[in-house]
Amino acid sequence: MSFKFLASTLALALASPAAADVLIDNVEGLTIGEDGKVKRFTALVIDDDGTIAQVLTAGDEAPQTDYREDGEGAVMIPGLIDAHAHVMGIGIGALTLDLSDTNSLEEALDKIRAFAAENEARPWILGRGWNQEKWGLGRFPTAAELDRAVADRPVYLQRVDGHAGWANTLAMEVAGIDARSKSPAGGRIERVAGSQVPSGVFVDAAEELMTRAIPAPRPNERDLALAEAQKVLHRNGITAAADMGTTIEDWQAYRRAGDKGALTLRIMAYAAGPDQMELIAGARPSPWLYDDKLRMNGIKIYLDGALGSRGAWLKQDYADDPGNTGLPLTGPAKLRNILVRAAQGNFQPAIHAIGTAANEDALNAVAEIAESFPGDRRWRIEHAQIVDPADLPKFAQNGVIASMQPVHQTSDRKMAEARLGPDRLDGAYAWNSILELGGRLAFGSDAPVESPDPFAGLAAAITRTDADGEPFGGWRPEERVNREQALAGFTSEAAFAGFAEGRFGRLLPGERADFVLIDRDPMLASPAELRETRVLETWVGGRKVYEAD
Amino acid sequence: MSFKFLASTLALALASPAAADVLIDNVEGLTIGEDGKVKRFTALVIDDDGTIAQVLTAGDEAPQTDYREDGEGAVMIPGLIDAHAHVMGIGIGALTLDLSDTNSLEEALDKIRAFAAENEARPWILGRGWNQEKWGLGRFPTAAELDRAVADRPVYLQRVDGHAGWANTLAMEVAGIDARSKSPAGGRIERVAGSQVPSGVFVDAAEELMTRAIPAPRPNERDLALAEAQKVLHRNGITAAADMGTTIEDWQAYRRAGDKGALTLRIMAYAAGPDQMELIAGARPSPWLYDDKLRMNGIKIYLDGALGSRGAWLKQDYADDPGNTGLPLTGPAKLRNILVRAAQGNFQPAIHAIGTAANEDALNAVAEIAESFPGDRRWRIEHAQIVDPADLPKFAQNGVIASMQPVHQTSDRKMAEARLGPDRLDGAYAWNSILELGGRLAFGSDAPVESPDPFAGLAAAITRTDADGEPFGGWRPEERVNREQALAGFTSEAAFAGFAEGRFGRLLPGERADFVLIDRDPMLASPAELRETRVLETWVGGRKVYEAD
Repeated sequence: MSFKFLASTLALALASPAAADVLIDNVEGLTIGEDGKVKRFTALVIDDDGTIAQVLTAGDEAPQTDYREDGEGAVMIPGLIDAHAHVMGIGIGALTLDLSDTNSLEEALDKIRAFAAENEARPWILGRGWNQEKWGLGRFPTAAELDRAVADRPVYLQRVDGHAGWANTLAMEVAGIDARSKSPAGGRIERVAGSQVPSGVFVDAAEELMTRAIPAPRPNERDLALAEAQKVLHRNGITAAADMGTTIEDWQAYRRAGDKGALTLRIMAYAAGPDQMELIAGARPSPWLYDDKLRMNGIKIYLDGALGSRGAWLKQDYADDPGNTGLPLTGPAKLRNILVRAAQGNFQPAIHAIGTAANEDALNAVAEIAESFPGDRRWRIEHAQIVDPADLPKFAQNGVIASMQPVHQTSDRKMAEARLGPDRLDGAYAWNSILELGGRLAFGSDAPVESPDPFAGLAAAITRTDADGEPFGGWRPEERVNREQALAGFTSEAAFAGFAEGRFGRLLPGERADFVLIDRDPMLASPAELRETRVLETWVGGRKVYEAD
Repeated sequence: MSFKFLASTLALALASPAAADVLIDNVEGLTIGEDGKVKRFTALVIDDDGTIAQVLTAGDEAPQTDYREDGEGAVMIPGLIDAHAHVMGIGIGALTLDLSDTNSLEEALDKIRAFAAENEARPWILGRGWNQEKWGLGRFPTAAELDRAVADRPVYLQRVDGHAGWANTLAMEVAGIDARSKSPAGGRIERVAGSQVPSGVFVDAAEELMTRAIPAPRPNERDLALAEAQKVLHRNGITAAADMGTTIEDWQAYRRAGDKGALTLRIMAYAAGPDQMELIAGARPSPWLYDDKLRMNGIKIYLDGALGSRGAWLKQDYADDPGNTGLPLTGPAKLRNILVRAAQGNFQPAIHAIGTAANEDALNAVAEIAESFPGDRRWRIEHAQIVDPADLPKFAQNGVIASMQPVHQTSDRKMAEARLGPDRLDGAYAWNSILELGGRLAFGSDAPVESPDPFAGLAAAITRTDADGEPFGGWRPEERVNREQALAGFTSEAAFAGFAEGRFGRLLPGERADFVLIDRDPMLASPAELRETRVLETWVGGRKVYEAD
């Protein structure tokens, strides 16, 4: 959309106390309404404080405002909310050198050299995405080769699949790795042919020998990372995120941004464990800070691990690893202890549970504790990937919100089939069953584990197919949700899951004016078209925070 | 002062967005002016945002304001600023059981029992102030006696002099103390007569065996402690303090109070070391937060210890301990490293230096580093107690502010004489010399090490005598300062030392309306009268935060 007057751009950009109200018209607006149905509109009036004053439909008379802006027919939807992301991880990833587009070792070395020159202040050069097969190298690259690009600072670069890392000589020195270093169980230090001298590549568990030497990001790097994360998310149409596993270092970065008026993403924070929760928030959740930009809502609890590494806790053995059921990272007694401690302070627990046993224990723990802590608790299970069908009704029965990531289903389906076998997939990524049984779904991405793109998430949610349309007709298509449900999962329901309803998530009077202008209608576009949605502009609290070139 | 209208009380108490401007007249006002001289006035006009709009003198016509309040002839001075305090320590101390007024063991046990009943949520009962001599007991009390008051929670109570502690049986169990426990060097575990069984009292270094078992305060205790500290300080007429040694836990308590509008004390924070500095503030000092209520200014660095324990670092041996010169807690190289790191981020260093060698090294370190970091740095030395006269000119030469505590001089003079001998006191508590040589002084209390009462500080500053008027004529009276200098040290100069000039510290237009109404004129009262000053009301940012009964 173009501005009618330069003055209006300035007025909004400066966010002056005398900011004026504004009419944005000529849009094809849609939002989830209070009845859970899509509601359409043609114009918004935004108050000078960045909240929505009026939502107009065709035929309504536009009020007199200080400024008017022409939406030029773009589709306006609520700012998308990622109900499960790692904000700082997204930013740190974005600051990292990406080698995935390099086609030869020399091209990679040039790119590494240039990145190091552009980032002189960084004590380590970190990156990812290299692939010696794509380079046609026929072998792993070496530390000596990496030294040709950067020798005076440690460098560590992960392979595209994350299962190997490539270090330069200085990085190995700093990590204390030499010819005497032994490969750990489950890992391998690559050696120079015919010697014990490490050649520079560390496979699987041996990666830890290097990664433990990498210093934690400094505060100024975290500040940069947050700025990057905001850019990445706003570019994807995301205006708010639940931050899963917030540390005090993360929180301080959010506050620094808030204090200087640079926080443009709304962050619903879930602390990385009870000590961080207490250190950050004290005895109770924080208030909403910075005009609803930041709140410490609750606590993230890891009940089990992941399916890929067979760390998810199952009721029965892994189909591809008999005798192994995975295991709880947080045992039943400790889980209940943490839940009680959280509930006593009105903190909202968000329990990571992937496997059937983990989901059952989380659901049962909530049932046991909820009696002692009545009221509006909004217990959350994060992922809820593989649930015993017998346990599915407990989401609704126990008032547990399922916070799920549609793209995990399309990324992981083959792995899930391998881990569980064909007969134990009835409660896998069971979005529709949870809704049908009266439960509530919030949708997210788990970025940076997956791309934060919510349009990919919306498309996966309504199709159960991946970007290539595979498998045809969708994987266990009975668990698809409809378009309204999918959009609600990424807007109003994600807000509800973070105690933010009424503040943001819908385009209704009194809510913050968080919206996205896009180039197609998500209720009408084909799934393939939906994935190609172009975000034109992203607005948070009545201020434009992203505009496409 | 009484309010003319109840409505005005309500308007201010509610601090509503529609707060009005107010005239406070009929006061005998005084402030340090921009020329460093006392400036007198008769009325203030406070804007609706809590800043001073006008300062009126006799004959000025009062403007039209929404409210008018009659000062009833009280003396109005700027809110006093404590340039060196430990805010959380004051609060935690105030929450601790005080046994100093008990006259018998039974009276103490009754008081302990009652305190435990009133503080059911506290996991430990902590206190101080007992004195078996005053009780006429003729021996130390025992754990068994303490168990009669509280047996089901650990109890630990420090003796009045801090050199012994009294535990109950459960506290010793929790600390793992039993008949096999050995007394450490420099300490003694008292034993039941004729046995090795600990009797419950731990002397000097043995105290550590108990105190290490006491859990750190929980966030809700810190929140309570901050509220208490604010009460204690406002009751004493203090509206702002430099917090020396702020930890992340302290900072979070300050922010929680700020976030909910409960921060009434202005806190200029100096982090407890480089890691805390970086964790709290990131790469740069925080902005002024909550309408100038909170800022992370810089870093507290402990260069040496204290005179009493002979930990202060001297150029020559202790007169009462030949061969001992004390020692630096932070060596010269590390000091310079920290100063550079702080200066790179524009953090203000506040260097604790007590002894002659420590002060010389701090002054020299600043001289070496200041060349590389020009600009308005306001390097601070905290305490600056015993300075080699040859080094005194370096305060002014190197632009170092001396942040000193007048009451330390009156409390410590006999100890200083013992530690240094009569011939090495020329640069001891040398307030006037530092001023005469062109340096700047900020005054504080070091509370809770000393009482936070700034009127005791003002009286000590202008007399060099203690509350009993000892020694007659003052100790080294040539180092007295005049009344203007003393008041400036506790107001405008303390603000300058915290980069707060223009925000608070003076009663001038544009500054925050932080003031105290008192019952006598500090420029005219005798020193003894000055010590008896009664604080009638304390106001911060145009809001009353304390009123005497």
